[in-house]
Amino acid sequence: MSLPTAGFAFRVDSVDGDARTGWLETPRAAVQTPAFMPVGTQASVKALTPDEVASTGARIILANTYHLWLRPGAESIASHGGVVCFMNWPHALLTDSGGYQVFSLAQHRTIDDDGITFRSHLDGSLQRLTPEEAMRVQALLGSDIAMVLDECPRGDAPRAEIERAMARTTAWAERCLQTEPAEGQARFGIVQGGTELDLRLSHLETIAALDFDGVALGGFSVGEPTARMYELLDRIAPQMPTDRPRYLMGVGTPTDLLRAVSSGVDLFDCVLPTRNARNGQALTWGGRVNLKQARHRDDQSALDARCDCSVCATYSRAYLRHLFKADEMLGPRLLSLHNLHFYGALMGKAREMIRVGELGPWVEATLAQIHEGDEIGVPDA
Amino acid sequence: MSLPTAGFAFRVDSVDGDARTGWLETPRAAVQTPAFMPVGTQASVKALTPDEVASTGARIILANTYHLWLRPGAESIASHGGVVCFMNWPHALLTDSGGYQVFSLAQHRTIDDDGITFRSHLDGSLQRLTPEEAMRVQALLGSDIAMVLDECPRGDAPRAEIERAMARTTAWAERCLQTEPAEGQARFGIVQGGTELDLRLSHLETIAALDFDGVALGGFSVGEPTARMYELLDRIAPQMPTDRPRYLMGVGTPTDLLRAVSSGVDLFDCVLPTRNARNGQALTWGGRVNLKQARHRDDQSALDARCDCSVCATYSRAYLRHLFKADEMLGPRLLSLHNLHFYGALMGKAREMIRVGELGPWVEATLAQIHEGDEIGVPDA
Repeated sequence: MSLPTAGFAFRVDSVDGDARTGWLETPRAAVQTPAFMPVGTQASVKALTPDEVASTGARIILANTYHLWLRPGAESIASHGGVVCFMNWPHALLTDSGGYQVFSLAQHRTIDDDGITFRSHLDGSLQRLTPEEAMRVQALLGSDIAMVLDECPRGDAPRAEIERAMARTTAWAERCLQTEPAEGQARFGIVQGGTELDLRLSHLETIAALDFDGVALGGFSVGEPTARMYELLDRIAPQMPTDRPRYLMGVGTPTDLLRAVSSGVDLFDCVLPTRNARNGQALTWGGRVNLKQARHRDDQSALDARCDCSVCATYSRAYLRHLFKADEMLGPRLLSLHNLHFYGALMGKAREMIRVGELGPWVEATLAQIHEGDEIGVPDA
Repeated sequence: MSLPTAGFAFRVDSVDGDARTGWLETPRAAVQTPAFMPVGTQASVKALTPDEVASTGARIILANTYHLWLRPGAESIASHGGVVCFMNWPHALLTDSGGYQVFSLAQHRTIDDDGITFRSHLDGSLQRLTPEEAMRVQALLGSDIAMVLDECPRGDAPRAEIERAMARTTAWAERCLQTEPAEGQARFGIVQGGTELDLRLSHLETIAALDFDGVALGGFSVGEPTARMYELLDRIAPQMPTDRPRYLMGVGTPTDLLRAVSSGVDLFDCVLPTRNARNGQALTWGGRVNLKQARHRDDQSALDARCDCSVCATYSRAYLRHLFKADEMLGPRLLSLHNLHFYGALMGKAREMIRVGELGPWVEATLAQIHEGDEIGVPDA
């Protein structure tokens, strides 16, 4: 069915338990859900060309408003026809509000009810981000989907602080919707509430009542125990609007994705597959593989015999390991391609299993296989 | 005609002044000459896949024996079927002797008439390189063409020192030829002699008289004035054997290549196109372009409108500049592909012009165009 913004639609075409498959249509692309969005922070999915990113199955990527706003500048990107023209990405694009990076990267930030003042991490210049400015910048970036500015409380914040952040996020969401919409750009609201189920459900009700094209869950994977996140997702996701896309922001590992898909989430983004690739960690059907480990030195087998990506078809573990030991750029490049291919294949297989009503058993079998193969002592990031 | 080593042949098929085109056949590949060999130092042409390297027209690349000998080790590479299998390069490979890197990278080196003792720059371990060891290691690396161990005197070395290096290089060349040849591996001799024409011609006579499959000129582009190198090449190259390939080691800029081709050189290698690419410098038909310069910030035009590579067909100068300013790996990657494509196209066009007997005027016109467009104040490396 049509979403509030003209040119956008979302259609659920199969359901298996709480999980569902669907199509998200934007003026530029059709995205099968559940879908993983590779992260192209600075208008580049690190080390890869747009063609390669699309070859992993991705039809929507994420770019970071904070980074592009500061460099090369939103007006500069607008003059190139937006991020998609600038970087030559021919499918859909989602931009975040910039708020998350203001909190994690900028210096001397102060937040008040009107917005956030901070200094750029690049040149120390004073900047001001408000709900209105976040929408103005994202309109210039020309993304298909813009995210509202929200406040994400610390993972261990006390309840009162979480409630204050929720109230501010609600007020900002309303202000975002009052701005003049950019043509062809949908807007997603964000639910906060920390790890308190009642706060999450109450904030979800508030945000879901607003005229957003989709609803996102923010403030997950910020330090809380993974089991707690899964527990909350099981309770929250099924309560999210069924007729609009559900987006879990900044998540996650292959396990996180399969758990959240089972709970009914449709969209994900995370730097993990590309960041871990740059550190020599491959994500495979057989678990995590750390190519820097000595055991791969003479291993002429493929990284993952079950993977049909060009990296697994072409190179040995020994060669991939050599590239990392020798600090060759080709290593991060090839592993980024493989990891995104694996994420794309994981989502594709999950959709297939939902359609035939066999998601649950497949998720359990896949997770067992992944966890069994995980190389011990390898950190995730 | 056949070269001394079974499975190798070199055939000159057209001549224009001192320049010539030909085919160099190895058991694995057929290489049109004049040809530029991209450098794959550590079994990787930095940032690029073998497919991409081949797409630039390259059918032979160079790998550095010193680096691969120390890491991952020659025996390890041999167990993978040699460098070409290890890195999945389906065409020809030339390896250097390791001597040049011993002089430029290793620590505490001492040279005597038998060989060179040095400490690895990686772990400080004591190593010994002799003419025989250089051939043994290259046999394990499995290159199509192995280079003899030579001694390259400093660019400003006095005449007596140059003569001593020549004598040692001759003795080592003879020892190399006395080693058991590796199957399917040709051997090239190296001419030294600094910038002294009489020494160069005398050493050329000595080396050319030995049973090598090709003759290389070492010790150029080591600090001498460019004009002096061109002057020497004009006198030396035409005196090199006509029935064997002529290789100018470690050279050079587009101008160097066109001048040396005009003098009759067949083969080149240089890190310049890939190294400069990593620093943001593009080599184009219109001269050098430094993408870090502010003038490219809003430039939506292609890097080089006369280039038919995928980078020039796809991305704007503004986007390429953004990638370098934002320190995105895709920048070095795309520029490496473009620069090697330009080198491949330059060699292809030179061959075409030789065949139609118009090399001279084309070289002058091309050099004028390149030099006029060069961005001022941009260093070469």
